[in-house]
Amino acid sequence: MNSSLDCLPCFVRQILDSMRRYSDDTAFQETAVRELLHDLADADWRVSPPVLAQNIHRRLRRQTGLSDPYLTQKREHNELALSLLSGLWKEVDQSPDPLLCAVQVAIAGNIIDLGVKTNVREVDLVQAIQYALQEPLGGDPGLFRKAVAEAETILYLADNAGEIIFDRLLIEQLGPERVTLAVRGAPILNDALLEDARLAGLEGRVRIIDNGCDVPGTDLSQCSDEFRSLFHTADLILSKGQGNFETLSEIQANIFFLFKVKCPVVAGTSGQPLGAHMLLAQSEGVQR
Amino acid sequence: MNSSLDCLPCFVRQILDSMRRYSDDTAFQETAVRELLHDLADADWRVSPPVLAQNIHRRLRRQTGLSDPYLTQKREHNELALSLLSGLWKEVDQSPDPLLCAVQVAIAGNIIDLGVKTNVREVDLVQAIQYALQEPLGGDPGLFRKAVAEAETILYLADNAGEIIFDRLLIEQLGPERVTLAVRGAPILNDALLEDARLAGLEGRVRIIDNGCDVPGTDLSQCSDEFRSLFHTADLILSKGQGNFETLSEIQANIFFLFKVKCPVVAGTSGQPLGAHMLLAQSEGVQR
Repeated sequence: MNSSLDCLPCFVRQILDSMRRYSDDTAFQETAVRELLHDLADADWRVSPPVLAQNIHRRLRRQTGLSDPYLTQKREHNELALSLLSGLWKEVDQSPDPLLCAVQVAIAGNIIDLGVKTNVREVDLVQAIQYALQEPLGGDPGLFRKAVAEAETILYLADNAGEIIFDRLLIEQLGPERVTLAVRGAPILNDALLEDARLAGLEGRVRIIDNGCDVPGTDLSQCSDEFRSLFHTADLILSKGQGNFETLSEIQANIFFLFKVKCPVVAGTSGQPLGAHMLLAQSEGVQR
Repeated sequence: MNSSLDCLPCFVRQILDSMRRYSDDTAFQETAVRELLHDLADADWRVSPPVLAQNIHRRLRRQTGLSDPYLTQKREHNELALSLLSGLWKEVDQSPDPLLCAVQVAIAGNIIDLGVKTNVREVDLVQAIQYALQEPLGGDPGLFRKAVAEAETILYLADNAGEIIFDRLLIEQLGPERVTLAVRGAPILNDALLEDARLAGLEGRVRIIDNGCDVPGTDLSQCSDEFRSLFHTADLILSKGQGNFETLSEIQANIFFLFKVKCPVVAGTSGQPLGAHMLLAQSEGVQR
Protein backbone atom coordinates (compact mmCIF):
# COMPACT_ATOMS: atom_id res chain seq x y z
CA MET A 1 0.00 0.00 0.00
CA ASN A 2 1.08 3.57 -0.64
CA SER A 3 1.74 6.00 2.13
CA SER A 4 -1.09 8.44 2.72
CA LEU A 5 -1.15 12.09 3.73
CA ASP A 6 -2.59 10.76 6.98
CA CYS A 7 0.67 8.88 7.61
CA LEU A 8 2.57 12.17 7.94
CA PRO A 9 1.73 13.08 11.57
CA CYS A 10 2.70 9.55 12.57
CA PHE A 11 5.98 9.79 10.64
CA VAL A 12 6.79 13.02 12.44
CA ARG A 13 6.00 11.36 15.78
CA GLN A 14 8.26 8.46 14.77
CA ILE A 15 11.02 10.89 13.74
CA LEU A 16 10.90 12.53 17.20
CA ASP A 17 10.81 9.22 19.01
CA SER A 18 13.67 7.72 16.98
CA MET A 19 15.82 10.83 17.03
CA ARG A 20 15.69 10.81 20.84
CA ARG A 21 16.94 7.24 20.84
CA TYR A 22 19.82 8.16 18.55
CA SER A 23 20.98 11.15 20.62
CA ASP A 24 20.12 13.12 23.76
CA ASP A 25 21.87 16.24 22.46
CA THR A 26 19.00 18.73 22.08
CA ALA A 27 20.85 20.87 19.51
CA PHE A 28 21.43 17.75 17.39
CA GLN A 29 17.81 16.72 17.87
CA GLU A 30 16.50 20.05 16.56
CA THR A 31 18.84 20.05 13.55
CA ALA A 32 18.04 16.42 12.75
CA VAL A 33 14.29 16.98 12.98
CA ARG A 34 14.50 20.03 10.69
CA GLU A 35 16.45 18.02 8.09
CA LEU A 36 14.07 15.08 8.35
CA LEU A 37 11.05 17.37 7.90
CA HIS A 38 12.61 18.72 4.70
CA ASP A 39 13.31 15.14 3.58
CA LEU A 40 9.72 14.17 4.32
CA ALA A 41 8.44 17.21 2.41
CA ASP A 42 10.44 16.15 -0.67
CA ALA A 43 9.93 12.39 -0.36
CA ASP A 44 8.04 10.18 -2.79
CA TRP A 45 4.80 9.57 -0.89
CA ARG A 46 3.73 6.80 -3.24
CA VAL A 47 6.10 4.32 -1.60
CA SER A 48 4.85 2.22 1.30
CA PRO A 49 5.12 3.58 4.86
CA PRO A 50 7.94 1.13 5.78
CA VAL A 51 10.07 2.34 2.86
CA LEU A 52 9.58 5.93 3.97
CA ALA A 53 10.58 4.86 7.49
CA GLN A 54 13.67 3.14 6.05
CA ASN A 55 14.82 6.45 4.56
CA ILE A 56 14.30 8.30 7.84
CA HIS A 57 16.39 5.79 9.78
CA ARG A 58 19.12 5.61 7.15
CA ARG A 59 19.62 9.36 7.51
CA LEU A 60 19.66 9.11 11.32
CA ARG A 61 22.22 6.31 11.17
CA ARG A 62 24.39 8.34 8.80
CA GLN A 63 24.14 11.41 11.02
CA THR A 64 24.95 9.63 14.27
CA GLY A 65 27.07 6.64 13.27
CA LEU A 66 24.79 4.51 15.48
CA SER A 67 23.60 1.30 13.87
CA ASP A 68 21.06 -0.06 16.34
CA PRO A 69 19.68 2.41 18.91
CA TYR A 70 16.79 0.05 19.67
CA LEU A 71 19.11 -2.75 20.84
CA THR A 72 18.51 -2.30 24.59
CA GLN A 73 14.76 -2.19 24.20
CA LYS A 74 14.74 -5.19 21.88
CA ARG A 75 16.62 -7.17 24.53
CA GLU A 76 14.17 -6.01 27.21
CA HIS A 77 11.24 -7.06 25.06
CA ASN A 78 12.79 -10.45 24.41
CA GLU A 79 13.32 -10.94 28.16
CA LEU A 80 9.76 -9.85 28.87
CA ALA A 81 8.32 -12.24 26.30
CA LEU A 82 10.58 -15.08 27.45
CA SER A 83 9.29 -14.62 31.02
CA LEU A 84 5.77 -15.30 29.74
CA LEU A 85 6.67 -18.13 27.35
CA SER A 86 6.25 -21.23 29.51
CA GLY A 87 2.80 -20.11 30.73
CA LEU A 88 1.69 -19.44 27.18
CA TRP A 89 3.13 -22.74 25.93
CA LYS A 90 0.92 -24.50 28.48
CA GLU A 91 -2.06 -22.36 27.46
CA VAL A 92 -1.62 -23.38 23.82
CA ASP A 93 -1.04 -27.07 24.64
CA GLN A 94 -4.15 -27.25 26.81
CA SER A 95 -6.33 -25.34 24.35
CA PRO A 96 -9.04 -27.29 22.49
CA ASP A 97 -7.67 -25.62 19.34
CA PRO A 98 -3.90 -25.26 19.80
CA LEU A 99 -3.27 -23.94 16.26
CA LEU A 100 -5.72 -21.07 16.58
CA CYS A 101 -4.69 -20.39 20.16
CA ALA A 102 -1.06 -20.05 18.97
CA VAL A 103 -2.24 -17.69 16.22
CA GLN A 104 -4.00 -15.56 18.83
CA VAL A 105 -0.91 -15.37 21.03
CA ALA A 106 1.32 -14.58 18.04
CA ILE A 107 -0.98 -11.70 17.07
CA ALA A 108 -1.07 -10.44 20.67
CA GLY A 109 2.74 -10.23 20.49
CA ASN A 110 2.31 -7.78 17.64
CA ILE A 111 1.62 -4.97 20.12
CA ILE A 112 5.42 -4.89 20.67
CA ASP A 113 5.87 -2.33 17.92
CA LEU A 114 8.02 0.71 18.56
CA GLY A 115 7.15 2.14 15.16
CA VAL A 116 3.66 2.80 16.49
CA LYS A 117 4.21 3.23 20.23
CA THR A 118 7.08 4.67 22.25
CA ASN A 119 7.23 1.80 24.71
CA VAL A 120 5.54 -1.45 25.71
CA ARG A 121 5.10 -2.41 29.35
CA GLU A 122 4.58 -5.87 30.82
CA VAL A 123 1.04 -4.94 31.88
CA ASP A 124 0.22 -3.93 28.28
CA LEU A 125 1.51 -7.22 26.96
CA VAL A 126 -0.31 -9.38 29.51
CA GLN A 127 -3.53 -7.47 28.82
CA ALA A 128 -3.03 -7.85 25.07
CA ILE A 129 -2.67 -11.61 25.45
CA GLN A 130 -5.80 -11.90 27.60
CA TYR A 131 -7.69 -9.78 25.08
CA ALA A 132 -6.37 -11.75 22.12
CA LEU A 133 -7.42 -15.07 23.65
CA GLN A 134 -11.01 -13.88 24.09
CA GLU A 135 -11.63 -11.79 21.00
CA PRO A 136 -12.80 -13.34 17.74
CA LEU A 137 -10.22 -13.20 14.96
CA GLY A 138 -10.97 -11.16 11.87
CA GLY A 139 -10.63 -13.30 8.74
CA ASP A 140 -11.54 -16.92 8.04
CA PRO A 141 -9.79 -19.39 10.39
CA GLY A 142 -11.16 -22.29 8.30
CA LEU A 143 -9.37 -20.99 5.24
CA PHE A 144 -6.18 -20.66 7.28
CA ARG A 145 -6.48 -24.18 8.67
CA LYS A 146 -6.94 -25.56 5.17
CA ALA A 147 -3.95 -23.63 3.82
CA VAL A 148 -1.77 -24.86 6.68
CA ALA A 149 -2.91 -28.46 6.14
CA GLU A 150 -2.05 -28.31 2.43
CA ALA A 151 1.31 -26.52 2.57
CA GLU A 152 4.55 -28.43 2.31
CA THR A 153 6.67 -25.30 2.74
CA ILE A 154 5.82 -22.29 4.86
CA LEU A 155 7.70 -18.99 4.85
CA TYR A 156 7.15 -17.19 8.14
CA LEU A 157 7.92 -13.45 8.03
CA ALA A 158 8.80 -12.29 11.53
CA ASP A 159 8.11 -8.75 12.64
CA ASN A 160 9.49 -7.47 15.95
CA ALA A 161 11.86 -8.54 18.72
CA GLY A 162 9.89 -9.84 21.71
CA GLU A 163 7.02 -10.70 19.39
CA ILE A 164 9.26 -13.33 17.79
CA ILE A 165 9.36 -15.24 21.09
CA PHE A 166 5.61 -15.75 20.78
CA ASP A 167 5.99 -16.66 17.11
CA ARG A 168 7.79 -19.76 18.29
CA LEU A 169 4.53 -21.10 19.73
CA LEU A 170 2.86 -20.85 16.34
CA ILE A 171 5.87 -22.27 14.52
CA GLU A 172 5.78 -25.31 16.85
CA GLN A 173 2.13 -25.80 15.95
CA LEU A 174 2.82 -25.48 12.23
CA GLY A 175 5.61 -28.05 12.44
CA PRO A 176 9.08 -26.49 12.39
CA GLU A 177 10.41 -28.90 9.75
CA ARG A 178 8.46 -27.22 6.96
CA VAL A 179 8.95 -23.62 8.16
CA THR A 180 11.56 -21.10 7.05
CA LEU A 181 11.69 -18.07 9.28
CA ALA A 182 12.73 -14.73 7.75
CA VAL A 183 14.00 -11.80 9.77
CA ARG A 184 15.18 -8.35 8.65
CA GLY A 185 18.59 -8.04 7.03
CA ALA A 186 19.80 -5.14 9.21
CA PRO A 187 18.70 -3.20 12.29
CA ILE A 188 15.60 -1.05 11.78
CA LEU A 189 13.34 0.08 14.61
CA ASN A 190 12.74 -2.85 16.98
CA ASP A 191 12.35 -5.34 14.15
CA ALA A 192 13.60 -8.88 14.77
CA LEU A 193 17.06 -9.90 13.59
CA LEU A 194 18.92 -13.24 13.62
CA GLU A 195 19.95 -12.80 17.26
CA ASP A 196 16.31 -12.41 18.28
CA ALA A 197 15.38 -15.62 16.45
CA ARG A 198 18.19 -17.34 18.34
CA LEU A 199 16.92 -16.03 21.66
CA ALA A 200 13.50 -17.43 20.76
CA GLY A 201 15.16 -20.85 20.63
CA LEU A 202 14.45 -21.15 16.93
CA GLU A 203 18.00 -21.74 15.76
CA GLY A 204 18.42 -25.41 14.92
CA ARG A 205 14.64 -25.77 15.09
CA VAL A 206 13.75 -24.07 11.79
CA ARG A 207 15.70 -22.75 8.84
CA ILE A 208 16.33 -19.05 9.43
CA ILE A 209 17.26 -16.48 6.80
CA ASP A 210 17.43 -12.75 6.71
CA ASN A 211 15.63 -10.90 3.95
CA GLY A 212 18.68 -8.85 3.02
CA CYS A 213 17.30 -5.41 3.69
CA ASP A 214 16.60 -2.79 6.34
CA VAL A 215 12.96 -1.96 5.57
CA PRO A 216 10.62 -2.46 8.55
CA GLY A 217 8.50 -4.64 6.29
CA THR A 218 9.11 -6.77 3.22
CA ASP A 219 9.83 -4.65 0.16
CA LEU A 220 10.53 -7.42 -2.35
CA SER A 221 12.41 -5.15 -4.76
CA GLN A 222 15.03 -4.56 -2.07
CA CYS A 223 15.23 -8.12 -0.69
CA SER A 224 18.01 -10.58 -1.45
CA ASP A 225 17.71 -13.02 -4.35
CA GLU A 226 17.71 -15.91 -1.85
CA PHE A 227 14.78 -14.42 0.02
CA ARG A 228 12.84 -13.60 -3.14
CA SER A 229 13.33 -17.11 -4.42
CA LEU A 230 11.97 -18.57 -1.18
CA PHE A 231 9.10 -16.11 -1.25
CA HIS A 232 8.06 -17.11 -4.75
CA THR A 233 8.32 -20.86 -4.17
CA ALA A 234 6.79 -21.21 -0.70
CA ASP A 235 3.40 -22.93 -0.64
CA LEU A 236 2.22 -20.60 2.10
CA ILE A 237 3.48 -17.32 3.56
CA LEU A 238 2.60 -16.15 7.04
CA SER A 239 3.23 -12.45 7.35
CA LYS A 240 3.38 -10.93 10.82
CA GLY A 241 2.63 -7.29 11.60
CA GLN A 242 1.58 -4.08 9.93
CA GLY A 243 4.93 -3.37 8.26
CA ASN A 244 4.80 -6.64 6.35
CA PHE A 245 1.14 -6.03 5.50
CA GLU A 246 1.88 -2.51 4.26
CA THR A 247 4.61 -3.75 1.92
CA LEU A 248 2.90 -6.97 0.74
CA SER A 249 -0.81 -6.13 0.59
CA GLU A 250 -0.70 -5.79 -3.20
CA ILE A 251 1.54 -8.80 -3.91
CA GLN A 252 -0.25 -11.78 -5.43
CA ALA A 253 0.80 -14.80 -3.37
CA ASN A 254 -0.68 -17.29 -0.92
CA ILE A 255 -0.22 -14.98 2.06
CA PHE A 256 -2.00 -14.86 5.38
CA PHE A 257 -1.48 -11.60 7.24
CA LEU A 258 -1.43 -11.92 11.03
CA PHE A 259 -1.53 -8.51 12.64
CA LYS A 260 -3.23 -6.08 14.91
CA VAL A 261 -4.77 -3.10 13.09
CA LYS A 262 -2.97 -0.24 14.79
CA CYS A 263 -3.67 2.85 12.69
CA PRO A 264 -6.57 4.38 10.75
CA VAL A 265 -4.69 4.25 7.44
CA VAL A 266 -4.18 0.46 7.67
CA ALA A 267 -7.78 0.13 8.90
CA GLY A 268 -8.87 1.87 5.69
CA THR A 269 -6.62 -0.18 3.41
CA SER A 270 -7.49 -3.52 5.02
CA GLY A 271 -11.16 -2.67 5.41
CA GLN A 272 -10.88 -3.77 9.05
CA PRO A 273 -11.69 -1.87 12.23
CA LEU A 274 -8.97 -0.21 14.30
CA GLY A 275 -7.76 -2.59 17.01
CA ALA A 276 -8.93 -5.74 15.21
CA HIS A 277 -6.79 -8.88 15.40
CA MET A 278 -6.52 -10.13 11.86
CA LEU A 279 -5.82 -13.49 10.26
CA LEU A 280 -6.43 -12.18 6.78
CA ALA A 281 -5.88 -14.15 3.59
CA GLN A 282 -4.59 -12.19 0.61
CA SER A 283 -7.31 -14.05 -1.33
CA GLU A 284 -10.00 -12.79 1.06
CA GLY A 285 -9.79 -9.49 -0.75
CA VAL A 286 -7.45 -7.03 0.83
CA GLN A 287 -8.67 -3.66 -0.44
CA ARG A 288 -6.27 -1.78 -2.64
CA MET B 1 5.04 29.09 26.26
CA ASN B 2 7.33 28.05 23.44
CA SER B 3 6.41 25.41 20.93
CA SER B 4 8.01 22.05 21.60
CA LEU B 5 9.33 19.34 19.31
CA ASP B 6 6.35 17.36 20.58
CA CYS B 7 4.02 19.93 19.01
CA LEU B 8 5.21 18.97 15.53
CA PRO B 9 3.08 15.83 14.93
CA CYS B 10 0.03 17.82 16.04
CA PHE B 11 0.93 20.71 13.70
CA VAL B 12 1.19 18.27 10.81
CA ARG B 13 -2.20 16.80 11.74
CA GLN B 14 -3.59 20.34 11.87
CA ILE B 15 -2.03 21.15 8.48
CA LEU B 16 -3.77 18.13 6.92
CA ASP B 17 -7.09 18.88 8.56
CA SER B 18 -7.00 22.57 7.62
CA MET B 19 -5.75 22.02 4.10
CA ARG B 20 -8.72 19.72 3.45
CA ARG B 21 -11.07 22.47 4.57
CA TYR B 22 -9.40 24.94 2.21
CA SER B 23 -9.56 22.69 -0.84
CA ASP B 24 -10.70 19.24 -1.97
CA ASP B 25 -8.29 19.22 -4.92
CA THR B 26 -5.90 16.38 -4.05
CA ALA B 27 -3.07 17.75 -6.23
CA PHE B 28 -3.34 21.09 -4.46
CA GLN B 29 -3.47 19.32 -1.10
CA GLU B 30 -0.24 17.46 -1.76
CA THR B 31 1.59 20.56 -2.98
CA ALA B 32 0.31 22.64 -0.08
CA VAL B 33 1.31 20.03 2.48
CA ARG B 34 4.82 19.75 1.00
CA GLU B 35 5.26 23.54 1.15
CA LEU B 36 3.90 23.69 4.69
CA LEU B 37 6.27 20.92 5.82
CA HIS B 38 9.20 22.93 4.43
CA ASP B 39 7.87 26.02 6.22
CA LEU B 40 7.55 24.08 9.45
CA ALA B 41 11.10 22.73 9.06
CA ASP B 42 12.44 26.29 8.72
CA ALA B 43 10.15 27.96 11.26
CA ASP B 44 11.23 29.57 14.53
CA TRP B 45 10.11 26.93 17.05
CA ARG B 46 10.61 29.27 19.98
CA VAL B 47 7.35 31.08 19.24
CA SER B 48 4.14 29.86 20.89
CA PRO B 49 2.07 27.16 19.17
CA PRO B 50 -0.71 29.61 18.22
CA VAL B 51 1.79 31.88 16.43
CA LEU B 52 3.10 28.89 14.46
CA ALA B 53 -0.52 28.01 13.62
CA GLN B 54 -1.10 31.61 12.48
CA ASN B 55 1.73 31.27 9.94
CA ILE B 56 0.33 27.99 8.62
CA HIS B 57 -3.12 29.47 8.06
CA ARG B 58 -1.78 32.69 6.55
CA ARG B 59 -0.03 30.63 3.89
CA LEU B 60 -3.17 28.56 3.23
CA ARG B 61 -5.25 31.72 2.90
CA ARG B 62 -2.72 33.20 0.48
CA GLN B 63 -2.65 30.00 -1.56
CA THR B 64 -6.41 29.56 -1.80
CA GLY B 65 -7.82 33.07 -1.52
CA LEU B 66 -10.25 31.69 1.07
CA SER B 67 -10.56 33.78 4.21
CA ASP B 68 -12.69 31.63 6.51
CA PRO B 69 -12.96 27.92 5.64
CA TYR B 70 -14.26 27.14 9.14
CA LEU B 71 -17.32 29.40 8.72
CA THR B 72 -19.84 26.59 8.17
CA GLN B 73 -18.64 24.62 11.13
CA LYS B 74 -18.54 27.67 13.38
CA ARG B 75 -22.18 28.31 12.52
CA GLU B 76 -23.06 24.68 13.23
CA HIS B 77 -21.31 24.84 16.58
CA ASN B 78 -23.11 28.05 17.49
CA GLU B 79 -26.46 26.44 16.59
CA LEU B 80 -25.56 23.35 18.61
CA ALA B 81 -24.59 25.38 21.66
CA LEU B 82 -27.66 27.62 21.32
CA SER B 83 -29.88 24.53 21.35
CA LEU B 84 -28.47 23.65 24.78
CA LEU B 85 -28.42 27.18 26.21
CA SER B 86 -31.82 27.43 27.92
CA GLY B 87 -31.34 24.11 29.74
CA LEU B 88 -27.91 25.16 30.92
CA TRP B 89 -29.15 28.59 31.95
CA LYS B 90 -31.67 26.83 34.21
CA GLU B 91 -28.93 24.51 35.51
CA VAL B 92 -26.78 27.48 36.50
CA ASP B 93 -29.68 29.43 38.04
CA GLN B 94 -30.74 26.45 40.15
CA SER B 95 -27.23 25.56 41.24
CA PRO B 96 -26.29 26.21 44.88
CA ASP B 97 -23.18 27.90 43.46
CA PRO B 98 -24.17 29.59 40.18
CA LEU B 99 -20.80 31.29 39.62
CA LEU B 100 -18.82 28.06 39.82
CA CYS B 101 -21.46 26.15 37.87
CA ALA B 102 -21.18 28.74 35.07
CA VAL B 103 -17.39 28.34 35.17
CA GLN B 104 -17.79 24.58 34.76
CA VAL B 105 -20.13 24.96 31.78
CA ALA B 106 -17.84 27.55 30.17
CA ILE B 107 -14.89 25.17 30.48
CA ALA B 108 -16.97 22.28 29.10
CA GLY B 109 -17.57 24.47 26.01
CA ASN B 110 -13.83 24.47 25.48
CA ILE B 111 -14.01 21.04 23.88
CA ILE B 112 -15.27 22.85 20.75
CA ASP B 113 -11.74 23.26 19.44
CA LEU B 114 -10.97 22.40 15.84
CA GLY B 115 -7.28 23.08 16.38
CA VAL B 116 -7.14 19.91 18.45
CA LYS B 117 -9.97 17.78 17.00
CA THR B 118 -11.40 17.43 13.52
CA ASN B 119 -15.02 17.72 14.60
CA VAL B 120 -17.27 18.00 17.63
CA ARG B 121 -20.57 16.14 17.82
CA GLU B 122 -23.60 16.94 19.95
CA VAL B 123 -23.08 13.77 21.97
CA ASP B 124 -19.47 14.83 22.75
CA LEU B 125 -20.62 18.22 23.93
CA VAL B 126 -23.46 16.91 26.12
CA GLN B 127 -21.07 14.37 27.67
CA ALA B 128 -18.45 17.08 28.24
CA ILE B 129 -21.01 19.21 30.09
CA GLN B 130 -22.14 16.30 32.28
CA TYR B 131 -18.50 15.49 33.03
CA ALA B 132 -17.63 19.12 33.75
CA LEU B 133 -20.52 19.52 36.21
CA GLN B 134 -19.35 16.50 38.23
CA GLU B 135 -15.56 16.78 38.12
CA PRO B 136 -13.64 18.93 40.60
CA LEU B 137 -11.96 21.95 39.05
CA GLY B 138 -8.18 22.17 39.05
CA GLY B 139 -7.04 25.40 40.69
CA ASP B 140 -8.37 27.37 43.65
CA PRO B 141 -12.03 28.40 43.26
CA GLY B 142 -11.76 30.49 46.44
CA LEU B 143 -9.02 32.60 44.89
CA PHE B 144 -11.17 33.03 41.79
CA ARG B 145 -14.23 34.05 43.80
CA LYS B 146 -12.16 36.63 45.67
CA ALA B 147 -10.68 38.03 42.46
CA VAL B 148 -14.14 38.32 40.90
CA ALA B 149 -15.53 40.03 44.02
CA GLU B 150 -12.76 42.62 44.00
CA ALA B 151 -12.59 43.45 40.28
CA GLU B 152 -14.24 46.56 38.91
CA THR B 153 -13.28 45.76 35.32
CA ILE B 154 -12.99 42.28 33.81
CA LEU B 155 -11.52 41.49 30.40
CA TYR B 156 -12.95 38.21 29.11
CA LEU B 157 -10.87 36.60 26.34
CA ALA B 158 -13.15 34.39 24.26
CA ASP B 159 -11.82 31.31 22.51
CA ASN B 160 -14.00 29.44 20.02
CA ALA B 161 -17.34 29.77 18.24
CA GLY B 162 -19.97 27.62 19.95
CA GLU B 163 -17.99 27.83 23.16
CA ILE B 164 -18.76 31.56 23.26
CA ILE B 165 -22.47 30.76 23.65
CA PHE B 166 -21.65 29.07 26.97
CA ASP B 167 -19.40 31.97 27.93
CA ARG B 168 -22.54 34.09 28.09
CA LEU B 169 -23.68 32.13 31.15
CA LEU B 170 -20.47 33.02 32.99
CA ILE B 171 -20.58 36.64 31.83
CA GLU B 172 -24.14 36.94 33.19
CA GLN B 173 -22.87 35.64 36.54
CA LEU B 174 -19.93 38.04 36.54
CA GLY B 175 -22.21 40.97 35.81
CA PRO B 176 -22.09 42.15 32.20
CA GLU B 177 -21.71 45.84 33.10
CA ARG B 178 -18.11 45.38 34.21
CA VAL B 179 -17.08 42.92 31.46
CA THR B 180 -15.35 43.63 28.17
CA LEU B 181 -15.38 40.66 25.83
CA ALA B 182 -12.49 40.25 23.38
CA VAL B 183 -12.69 38.12 20.24
CA ARG B 184 -10.10 37.50 17.52
CA GLY B 185 -9.43 40.23 14.98
CA ALA B 186 -9.75 38.01 11.90
CA PRO B 187 -10.79 34.44 11.01
CA ILE B 188 -8.43 31.75 12.29
CA LEU B 189 -9.48 28.12 12.83
CA ASN B 190 -12.90 28.06 14.56
CA ASP B 191 -12.03 30.92 16.89
CA ALA B 192 -14.84 33.28 17.86
CA LEU B 193 -15.29 36.57 15.97
CA LEU B 194 -17.68 39.50 16.46
CA GLU B 195 -20.51 37.71 14.66
CA ASP B 196 -20.24 34.79 17.09
CA ALA B 197 -20.44 37.15 20.07
CA ARG B 198 -23.56 38.66 18.49
CA LEU B 199 -25.10 35.22 18.07
CA ALA B 200 -24.42 34.56 21.74
CA GLY B 201 -26.66 37.55 22.48
CA LEU B 202 -23.78 39.49 23.94
CA GLU B 203 -24.02 42.58 21.73
CA GLY B 204 -25.58 45.40 23.74
CA ARG B 205 -25.06 43.34 26.88
CA VAL B 206 -21.28 43.79 27.23
CA ARG B 207 -18.66 45.88 25.52
CA ILE B 208 -17.14 43.79 22.73
CA ILE B 209 -13.81 44.44 21.03
CA ASP B 210 -11.64 42.43 18.71
CA ASN B 211 -7.99 41.98 19.60
CA GLY B 212 -6.79 43.11 16.19
CA CYS B 213 -5.01 39.97 15.12
CA ASP B 214 -5.40 36.52 13.61
CA VAL B 215 -3.46 34.40 16.13
CA PRO B 216 -5.55 31.57 17.66
CA GLY B 217 -4.56 32.93 21.06
CA THR B 218 -3.52 36.31 22.44
CA ASP B 219 -0.07 37.32 21.25
CA LEU B 220 0.12 40.78 22.83
CA SER B 221 2.90 41.96 20.50
CA GLN B 222 0.51 41.55 17.56
CA CYS B 223 -2.66 42.88 19.20
CA SER B 224 -4.11 46.35 18.62
CA ASP B 225 -3.17 49.27 20.87
CA GLU B 226 -6.79 49.46 22.05
CA PHE B 227 -6.73 45.80 23.11
CA ARG B 228 -3.33 46.09 24.80
CA SER B 229 -4.47 49.13 26.73
CA LEU B 230 -7.54 47.26 27.99
CA PHE B 231 -5.40 44.24 28.83
CA HIS B 232 -2.99 46.27 30.92
CA THR B 233 -5.67 48.23 32.80
CA ALA B 234 -8.25 45.51 33.51
CA ASP B 235 -8.50 44.50 37.17
CA LEU B 236 -9.02 40.89 36.18
CA ILE B 237 -8.57 38.89 32.99
CA LEU B 238 -10.42 35.65 32.29
CA SER B 239 -8.66 33.72 29.57
CA LYS B 240 -10.55 30.90 27.85
CA GLY B 241 -8.89 27.95 26.15
CA GLN B 242 -5.49 26.48 25.43
CA GLY B 243 -4.54 29.00 22.73
CA ASN B 244 -4.91 31.92 25.12
CA PHE B 245 -3.04 29.97 27.81
CA GLU B 246 -0.21 29.11 25.41
CA THR B 247 0.28 32.76 24.47
CA LEU B 248 -0.26 34.31 27.93
CA SER B 249 1.19 31.77 30.38
CA GLU B 250 4.33 33.88 30.85
CA ILE B 251 2.65 37.31 31.00
CA GLN B 252 2.52 38.84 34.45
CA ALA B 253 -1.07 39.97 34.98
CA ASN B 254 -4.08 39.11 37.12
CA ILE B 255 -5.20 36.31 34.81
CA PHE B 256 -7.31 33.24 35.48
CA PHE B 257 -7.01 30.61 32.79
CA LEU B 258 -10.20 28.59 32.19
CA PHE B 259 -9.47 25.65 29.93
CA LYS B 260 -9.44 21.94 29.38
CA VAL B 261 -5.93 20.43 29.21
CA LYS B 262 -6.02 18.83 25.76
CA CYS B 263 -2.43 17.92 24.94
CA PRO B 264 0.64 16.51 26.70
CA VAL B 265 2.72 19.62 25.97
CA VAL B 266 0.25 21.92 27.73
CA ALA B 267 -0.06 19.33 30.51
CA GLY B 268 3.70 19.59 30.99
CA THR B 269 3.77 23.40 30.88
CA SER B 270 0.80 23.86 33.20
CA GLY B 271 1.84 21.02 35.51
CA GLN B 272 -1.73 19.67 35.21
CA PRO B 273 -2.94 16.25 34.08
CA LEU B 274 -4.24 15.66 30.58
CA GLY B 275 -8.01 16.12 30.48
CA ALA B 276 -8.16 18.30 33.60
CA HIS B 277 -10.61 21.19 33.71
CA MET B 278 -8.61 24.15 34.96
CA LEU B 279 -9.46 27.40 36.70
CA LEU B 280 -5.84 28.35 37.10
CA ALA B 281 -4.61 31.67 38.47
CA GLN B 282 -1.43 33.06 36.89
CA SER B 283 -0.35 33.71 40.51
CA GLU B 284 -0.86 30.02 41.40
CA GLY B 285 2.39 29.33 39.63
CA VAL B 286 2.02 28.30 36.03
CA GLN B 287 5.23 26.43 35.29
CA ARG B 288 7.51 28.00 32.72
